[in-house]
Amino acid sequence: MLFTDEYYMKMALKEAVYAYEEDEVPVGAIVICNNRIIGKGYNQTERLKDVTAHAEMIAITAASNYLGSKFLEECTLYVTLEPCLMCAAALKWARISRLVYGARDLKAGYSLTSNKVLHPKTELTIGIMENECGSLLTEFFREKRNG
Amino acid sequence: MLFTDEYYMKMALKEAVYAYEEDEVPVGAIVICNNRIIGKGYNQTERLKDVTAHAEMIAITAASNYLGSKFLEECTLYVTLEPCLMCAAALKWARISRLVYGARDLKAGYSLTSNKVLHPKTELTIGIMENECGSLLTEFFREKRNG
Repeated sequence: MLFTDEYYMKMALKEAVYAYEEDEVPVGAIVICNNRIIGKGYNQTERLKDVTAHAEMIAITAASNYLGSKFLEECTLYVTLEPCLMCAAALKWARISRLVYGARDLKAGYSLTSNKVLHPKTELTIGIMENECGSLLTEFFREKRNG
Repeated sequence: MLFTDEYYMKMALKEAVYAYEEDEVPVGAIVICNNRIIGKGYNQTERLKDVTAHAEMIAITAASNYLGSKFLEECTLYVTLEPCLMCAAALKWARISRLVYGARDLKAGYSLTSNKVLHPKTELTIGIMENECGSLLTEFFREKRNG
């Protein structure tokens, strides 16, 4: 099924799998505008040794480059995990139209601090492909624990 | 006077002046480790059309590149303006040892949301060269209003 939230979340999940394959915490994100991908990213904090290299940040920068605009007012960001405070605040600055995330982040999700971090105009959808998004993370950390 | 907070804040202010000269909201930041500058940055959100290009984010990435580590546990970040939520959360991820800022940001400072955004081990110093840091911003916005 084209252009559904599941369709796009599957693409974000594909990005997350790239992170997994590179031994990074598996989180992936894409930015959609008019049914087109205009930005994507996966977590690269280890490879780049840079805490700012979260999937969402990379996808935001890519989408802004594509549009030539720092505002993403007609865009939706799909991300496999609830954004942290850094990424949620970046999405606020970008005035993203819509945020869709898969799994809740009970350790570092922005909503643990405040539900008012996002821009008041940003529409929020939660839990799309939650199990698939969450399982990839669970598997990653299980493997890490078991060496 | 070498190696005082004022000494380093003056360097951050110099970065802020670069932003001012490029018609960007004038905020500058530097990262110090063992009395050496290992990262610096000034706000480039307009030039790069990228909301993530705050002074602090650029300075964090530069310092991490220099150290080859995503953690900045022995470092101090000096910034002319109170960090926003995005930058404060990035500083938490980086486990910065110490944050020193000049002027309060009564519109978008992280402390408006929560004082618990920073890492619990991050030492905080506020108000170094507050007037100089704030005046540059006031002047910038006054000019903007007057066209």
